Amino acid sequence: MADPTQALAQRIEFIKAIDGLKNVQRKTYLFSGQRYENSAEHSWAVSTFALTLADYAPPKTDINKVIHMLLLHDIVEVDAGDSLCYDDEANATKADREQAAAQRLFSILPDSQARHFRQLWDEFEAEESTEAQFAAALDRMIPMLHNLHTHGRAWLENHVTLQQVLDKNQHKISRANPTLWNYLEPQLLKAKSLGWLA
Amino acid sequence: MADPTQALAQRIEFIKAIDGLKNVQRKTYLFSGQRYENSAEHSWAVSTFALTLADYAPPKTDINKVIHMLLLHDIVEVDAGDSLCYDDEANATKADREQAAAQRLFSILPDSQARHFRQLWDEFEAEESTEAQFAAALDRMIPMLHNLHTHGRAWLENHVTLQQVLDKNQHKISRANPTLWNYLEPQLLKAKSLGWLA
Repeated sequence: MADPTQALAQRIEFIKAIDGLKNVQRKTYLFSGQRYENSAEHSWAVSTFALTLADYAPPKTDINKVIHMLLLHDIVEVDAGDSLCYDDEANATKADREQAAAQRLFSILPDSQARHFRQLWDEFEAEESTEAQFAAALDRMIPMLHNLHTHGRAWLENHVTLQQVLDKNQHKISRANPTLWNYLEPQLLKAKSLGWLA
Repeated sequence: MADPTQALAQRIEFIKAIDGLKNVQRKTYLFSGQRYENSAEHSWAVSTFALTLADYAPPKTDINKVIHMLLLHDIVEVDAGDSLCYDDEANATKADREQAAAQRLFSILPDSQARHFRQLWDEFEAEESTEAQFAAALDRMIPMLHNLHTHGRAWLENHVTLQQVLDKNQHKISRANPTLWNYLEPQLLKAKSLGWLA
């Protein structure tokens, strides 16, 4: 590091900038049902979920890279907001908003770290590597667990159907590990029969 | 794994149990000053801080172990609550409360993972390894950054003096990396002169 104090100040500015993630509300209720969670809380939970489910990652997966991706995966929402995966209107403009946010936020960092973090985020978004596909699977799985636990509360509020849940999640989760999808699928069918899906 | 579905169910129960961390309020304001943060948000922020400050860790530090520790370091607060480091009364009973919480929470997991996570948490608490000392330094540093940014708001509300801040943090931060303390110290002296500390 040419100037460790200057580089440290830039890194701290980045941490301040992404603190806004604590105010980005997701359409997922806490397991207690008390309120919606925010994207910072979700980022902690899904990163810890990756650490906890490391044994379910495909062989040769670098679980630490998965965790690094998940710590950073939502920071663009500081500028771009959260888009529910079932909201096609919001998702139509999501990519442009998130690209602009990534450009702004990562450039706060020293150049080499900006490139490293941006590469991790791009890799997560592309969903091509084993690590990105496992991260994506966990990111899709965890809000389903919240919905199943709260009798489909956020699904019902957002008029989400079983078919939408299958269309948006089955491929992403089962390609990472069929065991994960096999765990979820019967619970989803039961949820539908209980009226927890629209 | 003898029974991957049973083990998966236990891991998911653990994730549900630690979700309560999202309702544990800390005595640290968001950088925006809007409200106190909670321990889940803090756990994300300090884990991301470790990823961002990896270059400041002592040589041979396993930064991924630091991140694993920080993801888990506060989960005992689900049962034991958060204790402000300047609150000697709360800290007198903290260890017993946290030991009971650790026993309950980690035992939700399959045995081998329960031992692994418990070992990570014990190592963090002992502050003997390089990884634990770096994790502890970041855990102490980040609320100081929040206070400096919000003109000492939580320090003043909790009647914290400059001497308390020095006593509780200087050793833990400077032993991990003097550069980190050298960055903070002049800001603390300035904060005192501006009336941001009691």
